[in-house]
Amino acid sequence: MLSSAVEPKQAIDNQTVYFRCIAGCSAKHSLFDVIYTCPSCGSLLEVHHEREPLKERSADQWKQLFDSRISTTRWPYGSGVWGLREWVIPALADENVVSMFEGNTNLFWADRLGKQLGVPDLWIKLCGNSHTGSFKDLGMTVLVSVVKQMIAQGKPIKAVACASTGDTSAALAAYAAYAGIPSVIFLPAGKVSTAQLIQPVANGAQVLALDTDFDGCMKIVKEVTQDNSIYLANSMNSLRIEGQKTVGIEIVRQFDWDVPDWIIIPVGNLGNISALYKGFKLMMDLGLINRMPRLVAAQAAQANPFYEAFKQGFKAKVSKTAGDTLASAIRIGDPVSYDKATKAILETDGIVEQATENELAAAAAEADLTGMFTCPHTGVALAVLKKLIQQGLIKSSDRTVVISTAHGLKFTDFKVKYHESRLADVTSQYANPAVHLPADADVVQAEIQKRLRH
Amino acid sequence: MLSSAVEPKQAIDNQTVYFRCIAGCSAKHSLFDVIYTCPSCGSLLEVHHEREPLKERSADQWKQLFDSRISTTRWPYGSGVWGLREWVIPALADENVVSMFEGNTNLFWADRLGKQLGVPDLWIKLCGNSHTGSFKDLGMTVLVSVVKQMIAQGKPIKAVACASTGDTSAALAAYAAYAGIPSVIFLPAGKVSTAQLIQPVANGAQVLALDTDFDGCMKIVKEVTQDNSIYLANSMNSLRIEGQKTVGIEIVRQFDWDVPDWIIIPVGNLGNISALYKGFKLMMDLGLINRMPRLVAAQAAQANPFYEAFKQGFKAKVSKTAGDTLASAIRIGDPVSYDKATKAILETDGIVEQATENELAAAAAEADLTGMFTCPHTGVALAVLKKLIQQGLIKSSDRTVVISTAHGLKFTDFKVKYHESRLADVTSQYANPAVHLPADADVVQAEIQKRLRH
Repeated sequence: MLSSAVEPKQAIDNQTVYFRCIAGCSAKHSLFDVIYTCPSCGSLLEVHHEREPLKERSADQWKQLFDSRISTTRWPYGSGVWGLREWVIPALADENVVSMFEGNTNLFWADRLGKQLGVPDLWIKLCGNSHTGSFKDLGMTVLVSVVKQMIAQGKPIKAVACASTGDTSAALAAYAAYAGIPSVIFLPAGKVSTAQLIQPVANGAQVLALDTDFDGCMKIVKEVTQDNSIYLANSMNSLRIEGQKTVGIEIVRQFDWDVPDWIIIPVGNLGNISALYKGFKLMMDLGLINRMPRLVAAQAAQANPFYEAFKQGFKAKVSKTAGDTLASAIRIGDPVSYDKATKAILETDGIVEQATENELAAAAAEADLTGMFTCPHTGVALAVLKKLIQQGLIKSSDRTVVISTAHGLKFTDFKVKYHESRLADVTSQYANPAVHLPADADVVQAEIQKRLRH
Repeated sequence: MLSSAVEPKQAIDNQTVYFRCIAGCSAKHSLFDVIYTCPSCGSLLEVHHEREPLKERSADQWKQLFDSRISTTRWPYGSGVWGLREWVIPALADENVVSMFEGNTNLFWADRLGKQLGVPDLWIKLCGNSHTGSFKDLGMTVLVSVVKQMIAQGKPIKAVACASTGDTSAALAAYAAYAGIPSVIFLPAGKVSTAQLIQPVANGAQVLALDTDFDGCMKIVKEVTQDNSIYLANSMNSLRIEGQKTVGIEIVRQFDWDVPDWIIIPVGNLGNISALYKGFKLMMDLGLINRMPRLVAAQAAQANPFYEAFKQGFKAKVSKTAGDTLASAIRIGDPVSYDKATKAILETDGIVEQATENELAAAAAEADLTGMFTCPHTGVALAVLKKLIQQGLIKSSDRTVVISTAHGLKFTDFKVKYHESRLADVTSQYANPAVHLPADADVVQAEIQKRLRH
């Protein structure tokens, strides 16, 4: 992408796009303030886009505008996130956008898998085909861009930080490195290997391993960031949701603005399903679509507080100690975005379903046989897909999208152990180990023919 | 991508696009014949596109056509390869295209690294942000699509095969799995772990470990594929070049059809630089560009036959035993595409340069600090970039593109060892290990401030 801006810039308008409290407190806060929760009640904030200014363009005009920007060389519109700039952070200046061409990922037509499962209109949104290998890039481009603009405006921010050992720290470190902003990653000492941290380590983050557990880390992080000189990129930060919400808009655009019947997404902290809903709600309000997809939150049975709350009719939030799961990125017992996610399920006639370790591993392996390379979280979503088909909820004529959150290359250990039949609580029914043979053409030919006859 | 074809199909024309011998033998062979080398003289084949039929469109018309297809939902034009369909395999039917949205990868503006190195117009073509994580997808979509069409036309092909332990086998297995065509991977027993083979294993390839070395494997492969029922996807196969040549066209398109001054590419078997040249030559012949970039082949010093041949003025091909190198995918002592690559260098005023293990590791680590996540082969190219700047060949005003051939997530072991200072012959000057601290906010704050002051 070239860095020339040929498109007229939208008027900077902090008046119609701002942080507000999700619990209803009336104050509006600038997106360029260092603020994470409502100062009045402590609830989460959300970025609110007033609808009236956006309605000055018709639905068709928005579609044409967004279509015209796909993969364009006009900075920064080639990014799937910044192609939707007016719906994300319109007040961000071109020169502060920190983008690595995120979004516009393959909406993979799962032709073979769909036919095998009896739902031929099945699509997998491969969010992991991205710079750092996970959907977290979508949110981090927004957060780091806003930080860059705050620094440009004179805010005394010296670094960005998060407490994470997974995809979030990888995305934060990469985007911060690209922007030239120092990053700090906090984690409990002794529990994480260099291999698990290699992305932030390679991207030059300051990685601090503390003699405490994860809660202890969060306590230190809060103390250290109290003077606002270090900006906190944790899961409460609602800027990331603005980037993540583009995935739903992108899916609809990839179907030529048709809405699929179902979208299944693996969930832990519940930020991603909240983001997905937020994108669809905006499209509904502005008339780009006239119905919502049914959203399905897929949980690992080992870490299923949202599933339990759903089963009890969402009468109260469930918090519990999450058990060990292969789907490590969604091993969350006390989800931060519970309120937002509940709304997403209730307002889309949605469903929460769960998958065991054996189910998620089998679903991932089965999908791989048709050309994918799925992470365990995608396995959770695919296992839930199978259950909803078996339950008769997803019908053969339905169009279903499964969101794949990360590239399988981030989870090769999971796959190696599966194919070596070394995973606890998992029967490796699709294991495909190498076959050892003598260097004899006849023996080799016989072995090949044996398999081809199957 | 939707699978509806709304674009009028180009007339199927085996008369003007065909295999021919690179040594000049006169026979033409159909692209849908099972043929790997010239039946008369044994030389490599190449896919030749006669220029006259292509000149029926003007240069501007071609540019408009290709621009109009970028990331389109019209099957199969959203792929970076199939968006250039008329220049790739025009006679392929829509329904036989086996595509996973390859190409259209980020042309990463290396703003920070470029400034550090004194060449601010520096760009990295991130070919590894793809389905299987390497540029091999570009070629494999073409090869597997042609095989699918041959099968549809009644050819008795039962499987595709290759002898490879790296990116080629990963790409072949994934595309074959997507197409529902069995794949077979041959490799020497005892030298490769499940982890190195996890992509073909997960994608259901039949992996055969033979009690012999690599040459012994090739011998068996040739015997087993003699009756043409198993199609060979090895490095002699010129169909893959047709997909790989799109990378150069895509780079130029991403610069709004401007030609960069330099393109640096890591090379081993020399197919990729041959492909790069082929794409540029086609653009020149059809008038889309009016000059060639200078092509730079970057070799690991441990496996440098092409570098040695260049130093001797290409008076003869050099073959040697390749030494151990971190850049394992280009550890080749006897490159298959020597003749094609020599032409690419000679006709573009090109250069061959080499990098030691220490140089490649340092260059990769330095680039990562600016937001990339480079594989060791990209490290070779970046180290060569630094040398050409130091030699005064690449000037501060030049526009340079470095081709990154694979995603760093395929080479995490290399990065982990680098940051743990465990690589032989490498001084880990950019090592960035985690720092172990007590859970004390003051100590943590002091550590952060110490680093920020740097």
